[in-house]
Amino acid sequence: MNLSQVARVLAGFTLFFSLVQGIPLMFALFLDGAPNANAADVDAVRGFVRGMAIGLGAAALLWVAGRRADGHFFRKEGLIVVGMAWLMSSLLGAIPFLSSAAMPTAADAIFESVSGLTTTGATVLGAPGQHKISELPHSLLLWRSMLQWMGGLGIILVFIVLLPAMGVTGKNLLSSEQVGVSSDSLRPRMQEQARGLFRVYLVLTLLALAAYWAITGSFFESVCHAFTTLSTGGFSPRDASIGEYDSVALEIAVIVFMFLAGANFTLLLATSRQRLFNPLVLLKNPEFRLYAALTVLLVLVVTAILIGSGKTLTYSLRQGTFAVVSLMTSTGYGAAADFQKWPGPALSVLLLCMLIGGSSGSTAGGIKTVRLLVVGKVIAYQLRHFIRPKSVEKIRVGHDVVPTAIVGSVLAMTVLWVGAVSVGTLALSLDGRLHLLDCFSANLSMCGCTGPALSAVDPQGHLVGEIDLGPMGSFGALRGWSKILLSLQMVFGRLEFLVPLAMLTPGFWKR
Amino acid sequence: MNLSQVARVLAGFTLFFSLVQGIPLMFALFLDGAPNANAADVDAVRGFVRGMAIGLGAAALLWVAGRRADGHFFRKEGLIVVGMAWLMSSLLGAIPFLSSAAMPTAADAIFESVSGLTTTGATVLGAPGQHKISELPHSLLLWRSMLQWMGGLGIILVFIVLLPAMGVTGKNLLSSEQVGVSSDSLRPRMQEQARGLFRVYLVLTLLALAAYWAITGSFFESVCHAFTTLSTGGFSPRDASIGEYDSVALEIAVIVFMFLAGANFTLLLATSRQRLFNPLVLLKNPEFRLYAALTVLLVLVVTAILIGSGKTLTYSLRQGTFAVVSLMTSTGYGAAADFQKWPGPALSVLLLCMLIGGSSGSTAGGIKTVRLLVVGKVIAYQLRHFIRPKSVEKIRVGHDVVPTAIVGSVLAMTVLWVGAVSVGTLALSLDGRLHLLDCFSANLSMCGCTGPALSAVDPQGHLVGEIDLGPMGSFGALRGWSKILLSLQMVFGRLEFLVPLAMLTPGFWKR
Repeated sequence: MNLSQVARVLAGFTLFFSLVQGIPLMFALFLDGAPNANAADVDAVRGFVRGMAIGLGAAALLWVAGRRADGHFFRKEGLIVVGMAWLMSSLLGAIPFLSSAAMPTAADAIFESVSGLTTTGATVLGAPGQHKISELPHSLLLWRSMLQWMGGLGIILVFIVLLPAMGVTGKNLLSSEQVGVSSDSLRPRMQEQARGLFRVYLVLTLLALAAYWAITGSFFESVCHAFTTLSTGGFSPRDASIGEYDSVALEIAVIVFMFLAGANFTLLLATSRQRLFNPLVLLKNPEFRLYAALTVLLVLVVTAILIGSGKTLTYSLRQGTFAVVSLMTSTGYGAAADFQKWPGPALSVLLLCMLIGGSSGSTAGGIKTVRLLVVGKVIAYQLRHFIRPKSVEKIRVGHDVVPTAIVGSVLAMTVLWVGAVSVGTLALSLDGRLHLLDCFSANLSMCGCTGPALSAVDPQGHLVGEIDLGPMGSFGALRGWSKILLSLQMVFGRLEFLVPLAMLTPGFWKR
Repeated sequence: MNLSQVARVLAGFTLFFSLVQGIPLMFALFLDGAPNANAADVDAVRGFVRGMAIGLGAAALLWVAGRRADGHFFRKEGLIVVGMAWLMSSLLGAIPFLSSAAMPTAADAIFESVSGLTTTGATVLGAPGQHKISELPHSLLLWRSMLQWMGGLGIILVFIVLLPAMGVTGKNLLSSEQVGVSSDSLRPRMQEQARGLFRVYLVLTLLALAAYWAITGSFFESVCHAFTTLSTGGFSPRDASIGEYDSVALEIAVIVFMFLAGANFTLLLATSRQRLFNPLVLLKNPEFRLYAALTVLLVLVVTAILIGSGKTLTYSLRQGTFAVVSLMTSTGYGAAADFQKWPGPALSVLLLCMLIGGSSGSTAGGIKTVRLLVVGKVIAYQLRHFIRPKSVEKIRVGHDVVPTAIVGSVLAMTVLWVGAVSVGTLALSLDGRLHLLDCFSANLSMCGCTGPALSAVDPQGHLVGEIDLGPMGSFGALRGWSKILLSLQMVFGRLEFLVPLAMLTPGFWKR
């Protein structure tokens, strides 16, 4: 274990994370025009100055600790850096929220920061005793969106570039390298690949910004929404999210970019190889095909259910599409409809969307479609084997044979998911103000990095529990320990359980 | 495919299943004393006569179809016999309920029959428009209990003796042969083993009968309860199940026999080898240890939650123990407490009990503890492998190495479970009178062959939906298609998905 090398790398990361707070600080100092009524209570400048100061202090300490590091850097060190970077940035990212008095307690600020960095998008704002989203200064709204954008980029780089290069995902997790992108593709070197992915992420963000700006006319809000769309985060500077604009054009644009952000970024990069744009690459990919087919299928199902329950065709198609894409990509934007009041079958499909999630190698959460693909193949294989026990065959996805180790890893991941949601539901239900469905869907939403939960409502559309955790609700009224619990769920879900669990194993820290 | 041989075996099975209806018929003719108020509407004699006549007719037709059968009988034929025997007995077992006018529609009668044979124990009786349980003649109550006892015996013989002998579970499913009982045990020949298992089942049933009779003084009800305890079925001749006696002694006896019925019967058989009773065999078995430890742990958790919510210690321990053991063994008897009104955390644990289920090689449903054991080992292995990718080791349960094929089979089973519950929840929620939690827990209960569901209640203890599917409720008010759907869930769950799914594959029927 080379902890001083770990400290040196983390020092660099912390320095970057502190300096980047200069952007919202500049915003707070010079551009934060037209502050809202309660913004006077919230001192964003103080928040960012303290955040940067503490961050720079931490970076300096880490630099001192790591100043005598030599070059050894192996997989364990890499895993520690990933885990610690998420922990440090969650804490440092919370300081501006807390020090600016935008949020009353440390648990609130940490929840919001973790929800940002994990690209979940659940917020504590808007609850009784909390500020409304629209009451925050623009600089803090920008910081919320930046947290999601940086978190999304981090996930792409860690899961597509770093972990496979360390031999982690290549053998243990389902990465896009393993199944998904065909193995005959050229494998660029690590740095080059990272640069390519960053370029795709940036270009798509700029395209989303341009589209949103053209439609809404608001540059600031478009920047925030572009940041949180491409990271499939879902934070919005508006109280009622995308629905507040009531613009079909904007919703279509958001749907398109959410869908793209839920696709495999290696694959999106592969469409533009050698300066040619070739979208056919997408359609040749088995994971993308399943992702697109599932999206269309579930949209149709929800639309049909809504029409069947007496809604108009326009409403059903518009709100159904938005909700399905928003939840499947784990973005979690709310559209005009408060969808937790939809009929039961539609709610079941939405819970299923949260569970499925987007593609591997994307910023989306959930179990991921490529795992479903492997699971489907395993079941089909088991059935064939059950009928003809002596047949010898291999499980394939596209042209690639799925190694046996992957089957075990998918099983582990699936069961850890179910286990984490079960334990979390049990723990959260200790807060007697929540209905069991609220607890279950909140945990599903956090483990899948989606954002909103589904609070139970009675047939008249009234809440059964006392707290609305739904798309128009807020997590701010939960108790402190619930917020910390859900923050842990977000981090565990985001890092796909194995990284944080491995770090919690005593054996990990032995030489 | 040797279909005439299949027909011949099924002819024998159908003959047996018809003749056995002679027992309740004799009961109806000579012993059905003190009929209740509404029993005049229900003509049990007509029901059983028609049931036997149709059954004997079917047996004759099958015998004609199979009269020229030769001896070839392989695994496919065996699977078809298992699947068809369940289908035929479900339909034939429903005839007495329908023809006697004990149940108004065919869907009701089939639901009750399937719920009996799969040892689920959910009933349509007691709903508006249906008879109460106590209004049925004793002969029909006996038939309900006999269906469960025969179904339980069938499951033990099929999953411990037949499928492993055909090489099915040995390679594909987790049988007690594969993991659970240590491989150094003597393997008796198939017939001898079947006889031994039958003896264990019978002796335990007689012991339960003796205990119940001594405590309650009612021979008839004790027979019914002994039948439905050992099969972990849960049908009761009383409207309010075991709770109606309000007897601590009876509840303790029921808890003991439910717990034993949820243990591996091969293991129970192994305790009395060579005329010596050696209960230490149980404690040496890793699956039994986990089963017992989980039971104690979950009992303590539920008791603690109930005490924490202000109930007395006596109530909490008594009702908590009964509910946990009843649901974990998938028996589903209701005790005095209407447990769906318990606080949220207790409900989460009860749902978890339904999911876990009992041991392999028992009549209990659920995912089964041995699978959880394998899953736990796989996760631990994945974590170790994640930390040290170059380590080479095997996954062991006790002294046995778990073959890679088993890991795939556990994955397939787990995911098919989750998938069936999800799809079933979606379908059932098309009945707008149910809350989403009702639909989810009903499907969980059916796939796990448990019996009662948990209907959502608001903080005041009132139902949120319109139909009570809980321990004191009934499935009788559901629509016809819902009853058929849930019947399918019971059969799929009981046969652990792979048998019925394989039979639905076109490839299965090819030569």
